[in-house]
Formats: sequence, C-alpha cells, structure tokens
Amino acid sequence: MPELRKDPTIGRWVIISTERARRPGVFFDYTETAVDSQNDCPFCAGREPQTPAEIHALRQPSGPANTSGWQVRVVPSIKPFLRIEGDINRRGHGLYDVMQGVGAHEVVVETPQHIANMADLDTHQIELVLQTYALRINDLEKDPRFKYVLICKNYGVLSGGGRIRHSRSQLIATPVTPVRVKEELTVAKRYFDFHDRCVYCDMIRQETTTKSRVVLEDSHFLAITPFASRFPFEIWILPKKHSCDFVKENGQNYSFLAVILKRVLQKIKTGLNDPAYNFIFHSAPFRRNANGTQWKTITEDYHWHIEIIPRLTRVAGFEKGTGFYICSIPPEYTADYLRGVVI
Amino acid sequence: MPELRKDPTIGRWVIISTERARRPGVFFDYTETAVDSQNDCPFCAGREPQTPAEIHALRQPSGPANTSGWQVRVVPSIKPFLRIEGDINRRGHGLYDVMQGVGAHEVVVETPQHIANMADLDTHQIELVLQTYALRINDLEKDPRFKYVLICKNYGVLSGGGRIRHSRSQLIATPVTPVRVKEELTVAKRYFDFHDRCVYCDMIRQETTTKSRVVLEDSHFLAITPFASRFPFEIWILPKKHSCDFVKENGQNYSFLAVILKRVLQKIKTGLNDPAYNFIFHSAPFRRNANGTQWKTITEDYHWHIEIIPRLTRVAGFEKGTGFYICSIPPEYTADYLRGVVI
Repeated sequence: MPELRKDPTIGRWVIISTERARRPGVFFDYTETAVDSQNDCPFCAGREPQTPAEIHALRQPSGPANTSGWQVRVVPSIKPFLRIEGDINRRGHGLYDVMQGVGAHEVVVETPQHIANMADLDTHQIELVLQTYALRINDLEKDPRFKYVLICKNYGVLSGGGRIRHSRSQLIATPVTPVRVKEELTVAKRYFDFHDRCVYCDMIRQETTTKSRVVLEDSHFLAITPFASRFPFEIWILPKKHSCDFVKENGQNYSFLAVILKRVLQKIKTGLNDPAYNFIFHSAPFRRNANGTQWKTITEDYHWHIEIIPRLTRVAGFEKGTGFYICSIPPEYTADYLRGVVI
Repeated sequence: MPELRKDPTIGRWVIISTERARRPGVFFDYTETAVDSQNDCPFCAGREPQTPAEIHALRQPSGPANTSGWQVRVVPSIKPFLRIEGDINRRGHGLYDVMQGVGAHEVVVETPQHIANMADLDTHQIELVLQTYALRINDLEKDPRFKYVLICKNYGVLSGGGRIRHSRSQLIATPVTPVRVKEELTVAKRYFDFHDRCVYCDMIRQETTTKSRVVLEDSHFLAITPFASRFPFEIWILPKKHSCDFVKENGQNYSFLAVILKRVLQKIKTGLNDPAYNFIFHSAPFRRNANGTQWKTITEDYHWHIEIIPRLTRVAGFEKGTGFYICSIPPEYTADYLRGVVI
C-alpha cells in the first residue's frame, strides 16, 4: 500500500509508492524510447481484455462492457500511484505525518484507434473526452475520502508518457489538496479580497488588450503564453467567462474548448516538431461542507484553466532548489511564433 | 537585459532570460550528450584566457591573476541568468510586477585538473571549494541589491550540467528570496513558534534514533534520505549542531562537511552507476536591517542543509501540475542500499 508522507520542513505531501518500487539498477531509463506497438497496444479497440475491467465507457447502450464499440473508455491504471481500497488512516510517526495512499488513478483512453497525439483526434472526439473527464470527476466527488481530482496528460516518453503511443490521459483523485492548487487558491483569494475581482479575469482583460501573448482567442476561450512563463512555449487556456470549476462548466462550452485545445495542440505539434508535452487542468477542489454532504456555492475568486507544457528543455538544479524558474525565451516571442504556425 | 517577472496567480518570480533566447528549432536538445573535450576545456589550468577574467582565485599570493597556479577559481558565467550591472527598477506592468534581471551568476571551478565529478576530488580540495563558496557569498552580501545567494551544482548532461565535464558549481545572487526558501522559512518559523524547537533539529533527533533513513553520520553531520523524499535516492546533509547559515559556520566544520559530502557523492557514483545529479544548498537569506547595513542575530528557527538529487527518473505531468511528488522507491530502502555501497 503506498503512503502519503508530509515533509515537516515545507508542508508538502509526497506519495511514497512502495508497490512501484524497482531495484536500483532499473532506474537508469535514460535511453527509454517509444515503441510504437500497434500490434499489441492494449488500448486499441478489440483488445479490451488486455486492460483491467472498464470503469466507464461511452458506447452504444446495447453494447456489452469490455468489448469494442466504444468511443471513450476509462480503465483503472495498472500501475496506480494510489489505491482505491481502504481507509486513509491519518496518523503521526514521531515528527512526521502519514496517511495511507488512498485515491483513484484512472486512465482515460481517448480514442479506439491507435492515434498517439490528442492533436490528431477530431474535435468531436476531444469533446467526448472532455465530457468524460467531467462525468468521472462528478462520480469520484461522491467519495468523501477525496478532496481533489487531477486531470493530466503525459504525451511522449520525455513527458513521462510511457512507451505506448495511444492517446490517453489520467485522472488522479487524492485525499489532500495538492500544494500547488492550495497556493493558487490562497493567492487568488487574497487578490479577490483586496480588489473584489478575480485575478485571472483581470489577467484575461489585460492579455486580450495587449495581445502580445495571445496564441489563440475565440468567443469563449483564450490561449496565452503567460507573462511569467516558467517554460518556453508554456501555454494556458482559460475560459473568458469566470468559472472556478471545469466540471461545472456549461456542457456546450466543452465543444468550444475542444476546438481551441485541438488547435493549440496542433500548433505545438506542427511548430515545434511534435514534442513531448504535459497538460494539467487546474480546477477548484471539491467544496464540501463539514458534514461532507452539501456543497458551498461556487467561489468567485478562483478561475479554472489548462496549463500546457511542451517538454523542450531540462529543468536544472537551480529551478529544483528554489522554485525559481528560468525561461530562456520570452513568451511574447513564442506567442508570436505560434500565431504564425499554419495548421 | 533579462527580466524578473512575477506570476500574479501564484506569487512566483520567474527569470525571463531574453539574452539566452534561442530560435525554436534549437530547443530540441533531446539527444544532447556530454563531449569530454579535455583538449579544449576552458576550465583546465593553462586555459585561463578562455574564460572571462576571474572574480576570485585561490592561488599563491605572488601568482598573477588569470594564469595557472590556482587551486579553486571563480569566474563570471558566460551565459548568465542574471546581469550584475544596473538597478533593479521594480515596476508594475498593468497587473504584473517586473524588475530588471539584476544579479550575479558565478562559476566556481573546483579543480585545475580535468576531473568531472566532485566525488573524485580529494577531501582537502572539496574543503577549499566550500571555503570559496563562503568567501564569495560574504562578498556578494555586501551588495544591497541582493537578498539571497544560491549554491548549486549540475553534474552530468541530464542534470542541466552542460557538455564540458570539468567539476564546477554555480553561485547565483538574486534580488528576491526564492519562493521555496521563503516557504521553508515560514514553515520552520511556525514550527518554532509552537514548539520552541527547530523542526530540523527535531528531525535530526528522530532520524539518528530511528536510523532507518541514515546514509552516513559522523560527529558533526548527518546524511539521510528524507522521510518524504520527492525523488528516489534524494539525500540531505545537515549539520547536527543548529546553524541557520552555511556561510556563518565555524571554518573547521567545512573540513568535516568535505568528508561527508565526498563520501555521499562517492556512494551515489559507485552505487548508482555514476548518474547525473544536482545539489543545492539551502541556507538563510541575507538578514539586513531596514537600513541595509546591520545584521540581525542568527535566527533560531531555520537550519541550513544540502539537498542532493540524483537524476534517475523523469518528472511527469502530475508532479509539475500539483507540486505533489511521487517517489517510486521508499527512502528506507534507498538508505539501506547506500549504506551497503562500499566506497
């Protein structure tokens, strides 16, 4: 059973994943490369028995589970960071805080076809994936042990995406709110308390006026290279209308989001030579009252968004030690470059 | 001139290094490998004219600058993240905060010989390097524009260490206290306010009692794999006697530190097949009074230490998005493995 352990010197929870332990000699995966094994890809239609039994699938109502005929399929991870069974069992260990590594780790298979990059899915298919995220999170929210569900994608070996080139993303439900999300919530609340405005809404207003960091813009969404980008070609996609929670979005907005997400991913693929990338959804954590059953109103201060990070450069010691990132190319330049990429 | 820009949604400063800008096509350095170019290494004795003029060198008093005959040599970085000239010029840019990328970026060449890994320097040489760190930081502290000096090392291409295999480290003076250090100071202070004890001292007491995460221990220093390790084989070295500032250490302690640092680096090299690694010193920021001239007393709540991170695994999207790390091997196992490595 994995453990969640808290570093007492910085207040950060870490997953110590005992069941994924490998012998030291196996850590040297420097040369790992993708093997495009379409012939035995477990995520392709027709190979459903090669994955654990599906948690959910979007398919014709008459179709039996774990057979082909689906459009989007959700299965448990075969290498879960966290385990669904058991109690959290919070406890102290001398100075240290520990809890069981309880959580959910699901894989969203985004297409029945052997397509590697979400950029190559059609817009409607991406919309179905977004709807699936929302549906699964709504379900996981019912489990009172969980405080947050992370949506993320690792595309390409350099992003931690593994060797199998079949487009998929991950949903990870955690019993604690991740520290980065907590910090964002704190900063956003402080800004709102002072200004009575959402910091992200202010940012959107400034960026749509300045335009120098806008990659794409439509009536509903804005894609920018953020002013204080950590990484070259980092891109954020934000809903223009204030909304703290991806899951609570108006369903129609998923179709708008699918369009801009595909276009951004296409620009990354075409303009940067199909690099590895990660995306992470930043959305409000579950907002339960103390009794765990009711919901507070949607907060006014937080604003959900997607952060996309092409993996073009290595993170050096300086960044790791300080949280102080060095971005070797200005976001105004990368936005301009991406605007010019024809897709 | 590089800029420091603050992300208004999380309060993090980022260096946007305009002068290091490269064209997008040059970002694809996936296959970068070290070239051991001893024949034209600019850091070797005898090639002093190939670096910028030295800032400091430990050499015979009679020896002229920028010639051979030195033991440790400090030169400006040829690709500085921050520039030494100019005013900080703090200003707003609509919603955003900006300052000039003023700072110092120095390279400490740790040996006149073409030796790649600090693990292979002799103990006395490492002691001279540690003394040089302290001497340079004491000097940089006089500049009222700087709040912190980071000491870090990138060894090996995978760590961001570059292609030239000559042992060196970096000193980076910044006009803001890095966010990670700030967080550590905040958490340590909160702990001290409640317990009237230093959290690191408490950790040292628990670890020396438990012993399961101790890699090495002597009369003055402790090397452990931390309870909530972020990375496999992450190691911290801490002084056993409370001290918040590496620079203010009793000079004799640098000789004790040199011994344990060398032994830890040897164990990493021997036990893990000479991997890339980073180390970062975490030490108290400059403590000036408001008038910038006097010093407050050493704080009781913070405790300097070194964090060493072998670069064995990739950081996936999950970690980047959440600050929530997954360590795939328990620190008790790695400490036990490293204790058994014969050096």
